[in-house]
Amino acid sequence: MGGGQIERWQSVAARKRSTRESILQGYSKWRLDRVPDADVLDVSELCLSKLTDKEKVIVHHDATELIAAIVSKQYTAVEVLWAFIKVAIVAQDTTNCLTEIFFDDGLTRAEECDRYLEETGNVLGPLHGLPVSVKDHILLKGQDTSTGYILWANKTIADEDATAVALLRKAGAVLYAKTANPQTLLSLETNNNVFGRTLNVFNRKLSPGGSSGGEGALIAAHGSPLGLGTDIGGSIRTPAAFSGLYGFKPSVARMPHAGLMGSQAGMDNMVGALGPIATSARDLELFSRVMLQYEPWFLEPPLLRMPWQEEVAKGKGLPKKLSIAILWDDGVVAPHPPIRAALEEAKAALLAAGHEVLDWQPLNHHMAVWTLICKLYLLDGGKEYHDTLNQAGEPAVPQTAWILSQHTQAYTAAQTWPLNVEREAIRTQVLRYWNETVSRTGTGRPFDAILCPCHPTLASEHDTTRWWGYTSYWNLLDYTAAVFPVGRHQKDHKYDWDLPAARNPTEEYIHSLWDAERYQNAPVSLQLVGRRHDEEKVLAVLDSVEGALKKARKIEESKDERD
Amino acid sequence: MGGGQIERWQSVAARKRSTRESILQGYSKWRLDRVPDADVLDVSELCLSKLTDKEKVIVHHDATELIAAIVSKQYTAVEVLWAFIKVAIVAQDTTNCLTEIFFDDGLTRAEECDRYLEETGNVLGPLHGLPVSVKDHILLKGQDTSTGYILWANKTIADEDATAVALLRKAGAVLYAKTANPQTLLSLETNNNVFGRTLNVFNRKLSPGGSSGGEGALIAAHGSPLGLGTDIGGSIRTPAAFSGLYGFKPSVARMPHAGLMGSQAGMDNMVGALGPIATSARDLELFSRVMLQYEPWFLEPPLLRMPWQEEVAKGKGLPKKLSIAILWDDGVVAPHPPIRAALEEAKAALLAAGHEVLDWQPLNHHMAVWTLICKLYLLDGGKEYHDTLNQAGEPAVPQTAWILSQHTQAYTAAQTWPLNVEREAIRTQVLRYWNETVSRTGTGRPFDAILCPCHPTLASEHDTTRWWGYTSYWNLLDYTAAVFPVGRHQKDHKYDWDLPAARNPTEEYIHSLWDAERYQNAPVSLQLVGRRHDEEKVLAVLDSVEGALKKARKIEESKDERD
Repeated sequence: MGGGQIERWQSVAARKRSTRESILQGYSKWRLDRVPDADVLDVSELCLSKLTDKEKVIVHHDATELIAAIVSKQYTAVEVLWAFIKVAIVAQDTTNCLTEIFFDDGLTRAEECDRYLEETGNVLGPLHGLPVSVKDHILLKGQDTSTGYILWANKTIADEDATAVALLRKAGAVLYAKTANPQTLLSLETNNNVFGRTLNVFNRKLSPGGSSGGEGALIAAHGSPLGLGTDIGGSIRTPAAFSGLYGFKPSVARMPHAGLMGSQAGMDNMVGALGPIATSARDLELFSRVMLQYEPWFLEPPLLRMPWQEEVAKGKGLPKKLSIAILWDDGVVAPHPPIRAALEEAKAALLAAGHEVLDWQPLNHHMAVWTLICKLYLLDGGKEYHDTLNQAGEPAVPQTAWILSQHTQAYTAAQTWPLNVEREAIRTQVLRYWNETVSRTGTGRPFDAILCPCHPTLASEHDTTRWWGYTSYWNLLDYTAAVFPVGRHQKDHKYDWDLPAARNPTEEYIHSLWDAERYQNAPVSLQLVGRRHDEEKVLAVLDSVEGALKKARKIEESKDERD
Repeated sequence: MGGGQIERWQSVAARKRSTRESILQGYSKWRLDRVPDADVLDVSELCLSKLTDKEKVIVHHDATELIAAIVSKQYTAVEVLWAFIKVAIVAQDTTNCLTEIFFDDGLTRAEECDRYLEETGNVLGPLHGLPVSVKDHILLKGQDTSTGYILWANKTIADEDATAVALLRKAGAVLYAKTANPQTLLSLETNNNVFGRTLNVFNRKLSPGGSSGGEGALIAAHGSPLGLGTDIGGSIRTPAAFSGLYGFKPSVARMPHAGLMGSQAGMDNMVGALGPIATSARDLELFSRVMLQYEPWFLEPPLLRMPWQEEVAKGKGLPKKLSIAILWDDGVVAPHPPIRAALEEAKAALLAAGHEVLDWQPLNHHMAVWTLICKLYLLDGGKEYHDTLNQAGEPAVPQTAWILSQHTQAYTAAQTWPLNVEREAIRTQVLRYWNETVSRTGTGRPFDAILCPCHPTLASEHDTTRWWGYTSYWNLLDYTAAVFPVGRHQKDHKYDWDLPAARNPTEEYIHSLWDAERYQNAPVSLQLVGRRHDEEKVLAVLDSVEGALKKARKIEESKDERD
């Protein structure tokens, strides 16, 4: 590297990866003797291979249970963290899910938790001792925040924590690792030139989704019980869906959102939300409750002064008979058979549990909405993204190239106003449509929630993601959405449903991908959508939906046993 | 007017005024035999000159009392409306406050209210029979919405009501007139080429403020008990202050806001709020409560799902000892002596009532904030405003010319992002400052509210308004603010305070205007500011502040009597 010349991007990446590697070498005892070849697809069991039996039990607990176990001194915070660290190390070596690693800090903090509990009998906070992982672009004091950009790598050590991170610390959580996000963050896969590509734990030919894909991979591997993600088009929900986890995208400005590194700071025509990825629905509630318990509206100006209604989230006031709408197909890309089958199963289970199930007729505008969303994502024609890549001389990864090709016109300020008007018109149209469903339901209420795919495919094969419509549509509307797992796809499963004829090139491409073998072992997930500011209600309805599914499966199992 | 040529602007204005005149001629019995000459300054008594004694009593009631009196059949809705109509006619002829007049519709509706009550014993809604006036740019079905633009005059008959208007109707209110707003709406005076200039009822050489200046004039004249205004820089508060009324600017998106005609539709870098102008503090609460009772968040996507907390607004949970901060001077333009004196009086009264009063140290950024605000108002360099004037060939009125000169650069979309970042940084700075006041107060809480001028002058002499900082600053922060009257200025009053040396040309200009004679008879008002989403609390604190002032004055009076 000559004087005044910028470092080649490959060299920045190598330096960044070597720093990570040298930290991991301090934990070499917990690394695999041999990292499996690429053709070993499912590494989920391997990720647990360094654990004792007790540690295996530990990493299978959800956050709620872990905290209770630490507080009741069944486990120490230190042994809990060690269990997750051991998994995280193998998960990193097999899926490339971590960016910044600071296990030592985490262990120090875990010791502090244990000592405090021992000495005072009190907890540090409602997340006492809980290990929590954090998506790369979320500021964590003292840690680099390269956010998948070569330009930012090694140059973005955070001076302070993001609000959500500060609140996690206040609540007694233990931070120990940051996780991969894709170049530009504007991707539903996770790949960047700094750290490379992140892989799906259940099938490494597949993506863990994005942009919170490092979280998805790490948590699915049981290398973290709970993680912080962000979502402006599906970036919490897609990783949750692709890895069989729970993900929650609240309405904009309900959860803390300050302290995120990213492009286009100050762009507020379409805004994202921070939320949890977890292994249980109740952990989504736990996270939300704890964040709002600290009245973050007194910390960040944009946040809404809407206290968390724990009782509502836990079902208070929720009618016994729900009216659930199913969006089977958004009119642009019909979902692949396993997802259709999952919706069918859920419908039957809901009906069996006494709920009402009707169709959400897709408004004939999902492609137009996507076109608008791309304009809003790229109001400068993508210039800032391109500039950030070009300044470091790094190439766009394929998913970046694809999304940046979706809109290339740079707008003036005044040209953005009609786009906002269009956005509001769409929001009004859907609001009215939802209101009017009161005339179709038998409950005297409009629909309680919408059940729909999270993505038209199971976990995407790398570089094949082309349709964000099932998630980004709800971002445009600023609706609340939770993703939850319903099963795992196996290649020999027969689905009673064929893909319909393709209606457009996007659908043609996505339908061409359908092959039961390709998606072997991929989780099957669904999405539950509520109205704006319906966070608590969506979680309450999710509990009912999961209850109905569980009950129906029990009946099915007992039938099978009788047969 | 030749074929294909556009109508000259003077002709459009003449047509519009003649339509209004012809409607008024249908009520000639209630017009003055002779409109007083311009040198008759105070027309407030004159406005009541056509009323019976009973009608005089009626128009001096606030909305709360009027509704109660109609519901208890002390008055009919028809006689109430007639009383206000009679005043409105004279107010129009002396202050030019009305735009669209539809007294007949109002009377029909008032009859309907009376009949319904008579026949069913029930009320139509919580505003049963209440006359309400509406600012011109707020859509009212069937009425033109020229909004002070020649281009729009006669061409903007509303297809439907604004949400707030629809809710007023639902609540049983009676609509009968629309009121003047200035050209562009971006003015704290009220003057446009369509209808001309609106005058202050108490001194016609002075402005009633703007942009809801028609409301201010009409309500101050007792030609309406309650009116709908909007505020993006002081447009509810300034008219309320200049006319001795109560005005309430809630945080953005708490009150209905859809259905407003105006320039820059879709510009959301800085957004306004709709709110009431009234003759009592309790009517501000009444209006807010009624609006939110209809859950308008299910009618308009941007609205926040934050139900009105009536009990909080009425003082529940409000500590007995409040900690009030006074912003004496924003560091740019020190207010004129009557306003300073009013703050001094309020301070003494609050202390006497046992409250704590401390100084709000102005952050050294009020001029910078104003510069940012002007950029946000005029992100296209004012092009859309200029175009709307130019397309009709109408000239800018002086206040338009002044505000449009404040920022002339057209930005790209990307150039607006750093402005939003700057806006958020300012919001964060003030949020933190407010939080930190907990260390200065003796209550264990940060300040409960800020008491400050609403404007550096009393009602402006026409075309002299130059400093919006005392109102627009709170818009930028999205804080809640209420304006309330504290007295009336008389030219022979001696103030124990001289204006300090001017610190900048704006202050120099505004201080040059100070002359006790010039502002003869102008109301003196103050502003009470709360944090974002503090609507209910601000009204509760306002009640305490008014209580303290009333008590102090009673003591003062009884002292005077003893002397």
